[in-house]
Amino acid sequence: VAEAPTVAVLGAAGYAGAIASALLHRHPGFDLAHVTARSDAGRRLDDLHPRSRVPLELEAFDPELHGSVNAALVCYPHGASAPAVAELRDRGVKVVDLSADFRLRDRPTYQEWYGEHGAPERFGTAVYGLPELYRGALAGAGLVANPGCYPTAAILGLAPLARAGLIADVVIDAKSGASGAGREPTHATHYVSVDENLTPYKVGGHRHTPEIEQELAVLGSDTPITFTPHLVPLAQGELISAYVTPSREVSERELETLYRDAYETEPWVEVRRGPPGVLDVRETNFCAISAQRDARTGRVLVFSAIDNLWKGAASQAVQNLNLMFGRPEGEGL
Amino acid sequence: VAEAPTVAVLGAAGYAGAIASALLHRHPGFDLAHVTARSDAGRRLDDLHPRSRVPLELEAFDPELHGSVNAALVCYPHGASAPAVAELRDRGVKVVDLSADFRLRDRPTYQEWYGEHGAPERFGTAVYGLPELYRGALAGAGLVANPGCYPTAAILGLAPLARAGLIADVVIDAKSGASGAGREPTHATHYVSVDENLTPYKVGGHRHTPEIEQELAVLGSDTPITFTPHLVPLAQGELISAYVTPSREVSERELETLYRDAYETEPWVEVRRGPPGVLDVRETNFCAISAQRDARTGRVLVFSAIDNLWKGAASQAVQNLNLMFGRPEGEGL
Amino acid sequence: VAEAPTVAVLGAAGYAGAIASALLHRHPGFDLAHVTARSDAGRRLDDLHPRSRVPLELEAFDPELHGSVNAALVCYPHGASAPAVAELRDRGVKVVDLSADFRLRDRPTYQEWYGEHGAPERFGTAVYGLPELYRGALAGAGLVANPGCYPTAAILGLAPLARAGLIADVVIDAKSGASGAGREPTHATHYVSVDENLTPYKVGGHRHTPEIEQELAVLGSDTPITFTPHLVPLAQGELISAYVTPSREVSERELETLYRDAYETEPWVEVRRGPPGVLDVRETNFCAISAQRDARTGRVLVFSAIDNLWKGAASQAVQNLNLMFGRPEGEGL
Amino acid sequence: VAEAPTVAVLGAAGYAGAIASALLHRHPGFDLAHVTARSDAGRRLDDLHPRSRVPLELEAFDPELHGSVNAALVCYPHGASAPAVAELRDRGVKVVDLSADFRLRDRPTYQEWYGEHGAPERFGTAVYGLPELYRGALAGAGLVANPGCYPTAAILGLAPLARAGLIADVVIDAKSGASGAGREPTHATHYVSVDENLTPYKVGGHRHTPEIEQELAVLGSDTPITFTPHLVPLAQGELISAYVTPSREVSERELETLYRDAYETEPWVEVRRGPPGVLDVRETNFCAISAQRDARTGRVLVFSAIDNLWKGAASQAVQNLNLMFGRPEGEGL
Repeated sequence: VAEAPTVAVLGAAGYAGAIASALLHRHPGFDLAHVTARSDAGRRLDDLHPRSRVPLELEAFDPELHGSVNAALVCYPHGASAPAVAELRDRGVKVVDLSADFRLRDRPTYQEWYGEHGAPERFGTAVYGLPELYRGALAGAGLVANPGCYPTAAILGLAPLARAGLIADVVIDAKSGASGAGREPTHATHYVSVDENLTPYKVGGHRHTPEIEQELAVLGSDTPITFTPHLVPLAQGELISAYVTPSREVSERELETLYRDAYETEPWVEVRRGPPGVLDVRETNFCAISAQRDARTGRVLVFSAIDNLWKGAASQAVQNLNLMFGRPEGEGL
Repeated sequence: VAEAPTVAVLGAAGYAGAIASALLHRHPGFDLAHVTARSDAGRRLDDLHPRSRVPLELEAFDPELHGSVNAALVCYPHGASAPAVAELRDRGVKVVDLSADFRLRDRPTYQEWYGEHGAPERFGTAVYGLPELYRGALAGAGLVANPGCYPTAAILGLAPLARAGLIADVVIDAKSGASGAGREPTHATHYVSVDENLTPYKVGGHRHTPEIEQELAVLGSDTPITFTPHLVPLAQGELISAYVTPSREVSERELETLYRDAYETEPWVEVRRGPPGVLDVRETNFCAISAQRDARTGRVLVFSAIDNLWKGAASQAVQNLNLMFGRPEGEGL
Repeated sequence: VAEAPTVAVLGAAGYAGAIASALLHRHPGFDLAHVTARSDAGRRLDDLHPRSRVPLELEAFDPELHGSVNAALVCYPHGASAPAVAELRDRGVKVVDLSADFRLRDRPTYQEWYGEHGAPERFGTAVYGLPELYRGALAGAGLVANPGCYPTAAILGLAPLARAGLIADVVIDAKSGASGAGREPTHATHYVSVDENLTPYKVGGHRHTPEIEQELAVLGSDTPITFTPHLVPLAQGELISAYVTPSREVSERELETLYRDAYETEPWVEVRRGPPGVLDVRETNFCAISAQRDARTGRVLVFSAIDNLWKGAASQAVQNLNLMFGRPEGEGL
Repeated sequence: VAEAPTVAVLGAAGYAGAIASALLHRHPGFDLAHVTARSDAGRRLDDLHPRSRVPLELEAFDPELHGSVNAALVCYPHGASAPAVAELRDRGVKVVDLSADFRLRDRPTYQEWYGEHGAPERFGTAVYGLPELYRGALAGAGLVANPGCYPTAAILGLAPLARAGLIADVVIDAKSGASGAGREPTHATHYVSVDENLTPYKVGGHRHTPEIEQELAVLGSDTPITFTPHLVPLAQGELISAYVTPSREVSERELETLYRDAYETEPWVEVRRGPPGVLDVRETNFCAISAQRDARTGRVLVFSAIDNLWKGAASQAVQNLNLMFGRPEGEGL
């Protein structure tokens, strides 16, 4: 283990960063060498996040120092991530970027939703880190764009239908816990605002929309989607309820075959008969999916549940790192 | 007040029954004379439900005794309600029935979803108790079928579009707190099952489906709907997210006018610019609604929030009672 | 009603201020003329707090304008309150101050716990606004110091024992929901920090300690107390569990008599046989209390529950205002 | 691993049983051979408890079949456990009993709190399964009485003081999440009863009282305790707030030394400077403790947090099993 690759987690004070750090700290195949944070530099990670039990001191980012590791997970907000990623890549560090900066591959779309890119010369160079779709490419990747939480659940849920050309139209009603909004305290994430409440947010304008559309298009479905997230009173957990108008009549049996064939060898996707609850996958790398036909309308209803901080962020990042370094895909998860 | 009409609440040990009892106990225009319960007869209502602060003893139902009041609210489960309602009506008692027994007006549809009716001779004789749609008829009604919670939110949310003939297709993704499942303890409503969880339930088969379709059809929209409820970790509160494919292009301005015209004189419907949260209407008779156009797909998105135990049950029942007895519609709410 | 006294609520954007504003807006005996806020001036109160349904615009504090009302509720943080209170009193406005600035009557104690006072010339001039103890003095008061939430529950819970000289020693283990920490977003009140958690805080140093001791001393008990608050995952609600070592053996019957005699004519204190839950008093002005003897140790156990924002702040302030203006004590509650 | 000892979990459908099964299913040193349940026999454990991911079918208890394993964890309610334990022990099975049946060692005390014992000939033959106190004896034990959840937290929290003879008197205010009440649905554990509520329960009569007293007496402190549990709105987690009147003046430094010396080599006890939150130890075998002196009264305040289903039940049972079979103590946790 002395020769295990060294890893730095940048932005380890956030929710996803802290969990990724904890997973890597206990990982037999990597050596967690550094954790960084902006405003919390100088504090110990296990002081900030006791559950992490990572006794490392958070450092201010230093390109020299943190560019000397073998791999980095970058858990910055979008926009802030690209320049740091570029610096690390310039030094040969393999990077999994958890921000949105490298997920989109079409420049105009990126600019429409996010504005100017922070490292334009590296735009479009990342592999999209959804192992169930890009396992082969991830093995040799230097830069991986870790998917957004909603896209992870939505794309895994819809991929079998998209590949079969069955999506004529789709409405995605998404629900997520409060950790999805990040650790920064705001009025919207105050306990009193979230508790006993339930609200749609960013209606018609959530930035995960083009990311979902991009990947569904790769799979063969280029219809624009309706995507509406809701904030639900729970800490971690995310559910996608997708309402698909099929391009032709689909039977229950056909659905069953489609999903079984797509996922029976996938270690982290559980196809269920009945709809999953988010608690079933809490603090795991699993995505639990059910698909069924609405007998009255012929619609296909797909439910897909993940833990937004695990499969939707931190554990999927470690899964990607495993693939990049030729480790067993589920190691340390 | 000595001559205020006497009222009995049957099934007062349940959540809706206890709230209705509390509202009527403090109501200046009615005299709450009796509260009944099956298994809890003999206990005081404020012992069972301290928040109600109703110091009456729960009685076993006695057709003679409880048939002597002027009005009754029947808060029984569906099936159990019809025979009791028939007995009360035979004695001339004005009844608001909170069960599903008298909501549907088409016998085959009723039988398909509920089986045999418990008082077939009275089937179809109730006025549907949604005051915003049936105010006139409610004034003279002897039997009112209080709407289901999901139908209340869904129909109020969609009525302006239905009346304008704008609904080509609609997906209703509904979310409700745990009180909607009733007070009877089950594995599904155990704190540990609901807390930090989020699950779709009764997918494709919730009995509020034909009720919503019936009323949308009255308003001019007879398309079958897709309706999926979800259980959310909160006690009271319900949100309808409706995704309408319009029959023709609709502008934001047209939507605004439609909803304003429909509800500007309605005391209990709040039309909002942004989507409502369920906490905004907690423990009130309000229904808060927003409607907006999804610029990317042209869909119309309608969000409608109520308290499932208030506007979705108890307070709406009192609102109906007010109308039936010529009291101010909002009295005691 | 045209001649109802005018009231201003200063600091109406906070939780207590918003509830007080809502109560006064619907109060038949007062005319809510102004609501103020610092950072939220210019916004409407019902936009910030939809549940309040107060359609007034929040104004920046203006001594001239807001000094022209008959009464004011000041909902500022401690320290900020005293100067504003002084300005209002100088203009003859009757004031209920919800901060801690005028609760303590001993200068050295005040300085030890809070530092310099913001209006030293008015220090010690307020009546302590616990109507159950100071009803007479409140009737003629110009300045009322509304009690802290923990002191309200603790003093009401312990008063019968203190008056009887029965408290040899007392441990107070207090639990409160997250609204007690105020509306300002912090890491400690982030949903993810509070949810599924439970933590003692300010152990040995909470500023409500001297306030409780002051009032127990007035009642005849001058033993120093051990007071430890805990943050519990709920929005509103507070429970005091007090463990009293009695100065002599006390029987169950004696306890029962003591508490009944103390509170049987009090409209807002409910003496219970079994321990109360905080949900029993949610969004009410009630304090629910039980007292019992621990047979094994002879200790007296007192449980006292309030809603920290209602009886612990806003509704008690309105109760005080009613008394100051000779209105029925429970009007508008 | 082919020769790993076989284990059966009896009562695996309950919360503790399901977690213990999950831990053993993934344990490298044991072979989980059987899981049993009464009313749920025939169902798969991962169907009942998806998070367990144990794909075994629940069987009805069969003394022959389940008596053929090397070890058993018995997760029955008290009373039901003793006869099953006796049958297993008669067949030479090593048993960890999670019920209260073998925890007390004084017959009259047992009878006073629980009534007749279900296997009187085996009464008093178990080792009390708190490894931090009985590690040596556990290594050779055939029957281990796994401690109650409250006793685990309370005894670990107070042991250093008890051993030093410092406890003149102690009040224990305990708080627990709803899983402590078990999986059987009741009115008390309905989501609507627990949510936004907080209640003391079994005041003066909780059966963990004599268990805590028994172990404190072994350590040298035989004062009767005051013990009051409270139900808090969270699923898992338990906090003990203990208020100790010391037999002599104790300094902060002395406290620090006492606790450090007691626990610095204990892998599962974390001594903290500030009070722990229950979330810090969620789903772990850790007990997090802080002890401090209340400067105003000289009292010693001890806070001790565990996960009631893990260190308070399932993971501690596995820790005991590891010790009984000579495995590394923390294996599989």
